[in-house]
Amino acid sequence: MNTRKYKLTIAYDGTAYQGWQLQKVGLGVQEKVEGALARLYPSAPRLHSSSRTDTGVHALGMVAHFEVPLAEAKLPARRIALALNAWLPDDIRVQASVKAAKDFHARFHASGKQYRYYVWNLHAMNPLLEKTAWHVTRKLDLKRMRAAAKAFPGEHDFQSFTAKTDYEPGTTTRRLTRCDISKSGPLYTFTIEGEGFLYRMCRGIVGTLVQIGFGRFPPGEVKTMLAKKDRRTAGMSAPAHGLVLQKVFYKRPLPVRRLKS
Amino acid sequence: MNTRKYKLTIAYDGTAYQGWQLQKVGLGVQEKVEGALARLYPSAPRLHSSSRTDTGVHALGMVAHFEVPLAEAKLPARRIALALNAWLPDDIRVQASVKAAKDFHARFHASGKQYRYYVWNLHAMNPLLEKTAWHVTRKLDLKRMRAAAKAFPGEHDFQSFTAKTDYEPGTTTRRLTRCDISKSGPLYTFTIEGEGFLYRMCRGIVGTLVQIGFGRFPPGEVKTMLAKKDRRTAGMSAPAHGLVLQKVFYKRPLPVRRLKS
Repeated sequence: MNTRKYKLTIAYDGTAYQGWQLQKVGLGVQEKVEGALARLYPSAPRLHSSSRTDTGVHALGMVAHFEVPLAEAKLPARRIALALNAWLPDDIRVQASVKAAKDFHARFHASGKQYRYYVWNLHAMNPLLEKTAWHVTRKLDLKRMRAAAKAFPGEHDFQSFTAKTDYEPGTTTRRLTRCDISKSGPLYTFTIEGEGFLYRMCRGIVGTLVQIGFGRFPPGEVKTMLAKKDRRTAGMSAPAHGLVLQKVFYKRPLPVRRLKS
Repeated sequence: MNTRKYKLTIAYDGTAYQGWQLQKVGLGVQEKVEGALARLYPSAPRLHSSSRTDTGVHALGMVAHFEVPLAEAKLPARRIALALNAWLPDDIRVQASVKAAKDFHARFHASGKQYRYYVWNLHAMNPLLEKTAWHVTRKLDLKRMRAAAKAFPGEHDFQSFTAKTDYEPGTTTRRLTRCDISKSGPLYTFTIEGEGFLYRMCRGIVGTLVQIGFGRFPPGEVKTMLAKKDRRTAGMSAPAHGLVLQKVFYKRPLPVRRLKS
């Protein structure tokens, strides 16, 4: 059957959702977007996303693709975002819609992802960041955190920084390409980029860095944590609501099929 | 009577409030903070703020002072913020509390203020900025806006950029020290600093710059608008919810008494 494929870039405030994926209990973002797609296309296409996000995690640049029979492909690609947004709630907004190559796959062809994590470090919270930053009241030491963050880029076994899950078989080795921290007043922004991520890996990294910022672990400890391959050796998991899937990277030309988390 | 004076730095999400000031109808932020002060001090001190903000406008660095009889001044200055926050709703957070000089006045001694205004320029809104950015769907031209913004710093009669009000007598001349625009993806941040501001002046400036960004006026038109001293010659007023009172500046030593808007 002749079909046409489209790529969507989706932003959402994860507060009200049980994460990206269809849920047995609660509401997934994917379900909402598929509901809107079914309003536009009688074939009710499934969405294939670059990533999952956890309950409460936000996204600015989630990428997903879908495919429709050519006979249904009447709406110009760039109008699809507008049409979907008309059916979607305000906390989910399709930022862009474009035609994709026949063999494009949002997940398999993603060459990397960028996450951002926001921490507000003051006794009092910033009321404008209530839903999107972790409120940490204990004083953070930026120098210590930056020293520790240097240990993350590169290829490592991240078993000590991931939560156990039953849907993620295979290796726990991943390559991070960036892990840095910027500061503007009491606001810390952690930027983490990598080719792939394990379940709750970003939150494990940020939680550990924050505890290093408290003085709970020495900055040099990250290497030992990585080497031990045991979740209990690393620090806490940072809460979901400070995390944003910022963007997903794709190489051109599309790389060979490769499984990504 | 012997008294002690304190300076507060207050952040709030203005969404739920009819602005800073006590309102005949609706709720003011000042009222809320004074309510919390009355829990700590039997004399129920009045708050004197650096500025007013309009309905829906936010603040990160609103400054206000209050004075209590020495006999009531038992709480260490830096603990006052914590104690007030215990009584305040989550959308108002006292960020800092310090002892102030006897003659300190949050309004009369303010040497300047910085406002930020956020615009999200894409067909679809960023759901994480729903409450704090103006959603402008028409394409903006940054170069045009930047060229136009250059006309604002300096001393001008800003009558064309202010809304009429009955509580603001006197001159409409003000000195702006900064008016610039930064861009990160679809997010535009307008930073406006000045010694004093007229009613709705920032929103008039941003609304006009955005309309210049559309092509509604040529960038050179700002000079003419300023010269005409007539609100109808300038552009629209940007909506309240994109505006944040970022900080208030004080000189040391305190300057002589000077009336500020």
